[in-house]
Amino acid sequence: MTGAYVTAGEDYKRDMNYVTTRITADGRDGFAVEPGRYRLVVSRACPWANRAIIVRRLLGLEDVLSMGVAGPTHDARSWTFDLDPDGRDPVLGYERLQEAYFALDPDYPRGITVPAIVDVTTGKLVTNDFDQLTRDLSGEWTAYQREGAPDLFPADLHDEQESVMRRVFTEVNNGVYRCGFAGSQETYEAAYERLWTAMDWLEDRLATRRYLMGERITEADVRLFTTLVRFDPVYHGHFKCNRNKLTEMPNLWAYARDLFQTPGFGDTVDFDHIKAHYYVVHADINPTRIVPAGPSLDNWLEPHGRDGLPTDTWGSGGTAPGPVAEAERVDPAHTPLR
Amino acid sequence: MTGAYVTAGEDYKRDMNYVTTRITADGRDGFAVEPGRYRLVVSRACPWANRAIIVRRLLGLEDVLSMGVAGPTHDARSWTFDLDPDGRDPVLGYERLQEAYFALDPDYPRGITVPAIVDVTTGKLVTNDFDQLTRDLSGEWTAYQREGAPDLFPADLHDEQESVMRRVFTEVNNGVYRCGFAGSQETYEAAYERLWTAMDWLEDRLATRRYLMGERITEADVRLFTTLVRFDPVYHGHFKCNRNKLTEMPNLWAYARDLFQTPGFGDTVDFDHIKAHYYVVHADINPTRIVPAGPSLDNWLEPHGRDGLPTDTWGSGGTAPGPVAEAERVDPAHTPLR
Repeated sequence: MTGAYVTAGEDYKRDMNYVTTRITADGRDGFAVEPGRYRLVVSRACPWANRAIIVRRLLGLEDVLSMGVAGPTHDARSWTFDLDPDGRDPVLGYERLQEAYFALDPDYPRGITVPAIVDVTTGKLVTNDFDQLTRDLSGEWTAYQREGAPDLFPADLHDEQESVMRRVFTEVNNGVYRCGFAGSQETYEAAYERLWTAMDWLEDRLATRRYLMGERITEADVRLFTTLVRFDPVYHGHFKCNRNKLTEMPNLWAYARDLFQTPGFGDTVDFDHIKAHYYVVHADINPTRIVPAGPSLDNWLEPHGRDGLPTDTWGSGGTAPGPVAEAERVDPAHTPLR
Repeated sequence: MTGAYVTAGEDYKRDMNYVTTRITADGRDGFAVEPGRYRLVVSRACPWANRAIIVRRLLGLEDVLSMGVAGPTHDARSWTFDLDPDGRDPVLGYERLQEAYFALDPDYPRGITVPAIVDVTTGKLVTNDFDQLTRDLSGEWTAYQREGAPDLFPADLHDEQESVMRRVFTEVNNGVYRCGFAGSQETYEAAYERLWTAMDWLEDRLATRRYLMGERITEADVRLFTTLVRFDPVYHGHFKCNRNKLTEMPNLWAYARDLFQTPGFGDTVDFDHIKAHYYVVHADINPTRIVPAGPSLDNWLEPHGRDGLPTDTWGSGGTAPGPVAEAERVDPAHTPLR
């Protein structure tokens, strides 16, 4: 939301209260998995929404779960559908995502966030719980996943994967925000130390593993990728995560490029939306709202050289997702992928 | 000054009106070169003052022209001597540099800037004309320069050197400010294009020349160095000069390291003062006033590999300056040079 992101003297604390209703195969919360019934609302700017866009692509759910894309910036009230020709989401008919939240609860008291899944039949928000949302795309929508969809939560890796994802969430995904929204020099410096300790751990971990969990792509990679792809364009300067650029960490940078060049990852990324969002919306840390022209992005397409590491990218029987549907392609002017 | 650096909708324009009185060998403006009579007031944060600190060192004028060092930050009125034990410059007795300006002109109407030279016998400002000031240290103080002092304005290079310095000034030294203080997205983007066009020209020029003018160090190098040394710590993020870091331009980065490791250059640089100044004073582009902890600086000491280019660093009969006087050493916690 536009407004105060920084509270003087205080640590940044993410509001982790979400609408936790689940869409499941058995419909036990009243919302059964059903093709065409739901709409995933995202912004390509937002790293939490980017997770859902990637997972939906990797699992091939595009035809059963439609997607509405809000513009990169928003006002104090809500994300808006300003990219759509008449400023309304063509399926929901809404101008603002908050309409779906208020349809569920006219007094909805918290932030209007993406990703959100809306029940098209009622226009009401079902869930905005970003952590559970992608888990359920994997675990509950199995009947509708494409042939060759990867298993993003392999049972044999469960405990280690959860541990890795937890550390990535607290130290990296949320860690960059803790730096950027720190309310004092002291809380900023503590946040910076935590972030870089974790970045060094990842750099080390990726020296011998092609992906975070080893040979196969898992949800852990999706979750790390969405922060890494924003690192140099936004977090390095705007959030002062500037010990070094991502491009200065050989393993992490090659890993990020490797994923970027993998179908389902880079083809979901809109660098213009990402930069516009952070630099325009957080006016309390960028009052001029001027969006940097850099960094140059062509280096995302350079060879990553990670083919020599043990590799089973899509797991047994798995295949890469096909090309992006024309209607969902990122504007070629906003990405080095053309 | 603390206050408004950015004017919405407008280009940044530097006020180029200075007090242009000159201190000369013949004293034609009433101020003759004389050991002990003048005090150079600087801030180590300021790139324009950093020029004078370097030239004074290269020419060995430390014992004849004393130096007062203001703190890195200042309030709306003036640079202050807050680094000195009792908050007063020990020679001038002033708490604020503006006292020297007001001693000259009680209605002095413009910004209180460094570098400034003050006549110790009267306490009055003599000049704050940063461009002429270092020229006169070279051209007028010849009788007091050390043995082996380099010729920073070699006659045989005159025209080309002036042309290079002019382009470096308008496009790079001032170009980074034009990016950082742009009042609109359009003026920022125009400034960014100008800056990087010049940076690419320099990168190319330095491929075959050890120094900007060829084999010898000249004032052109002093003037470029003070911007380059601030590039990644400040201009890259704070001023949005972020097409790439200096460290990503092989020739410019090796050239900057080469100079940094040369006596008289790196030993004048206080990275903590530099970062504190920009991030604290320009509250209209960094309202939180939080100073980034990065970038890491140890890479300034890596080998530069430029020894193979044609080299005559100090010119005929020239030698490197000796070690920095103990009283003028940069705090070892503020520099990778220890």
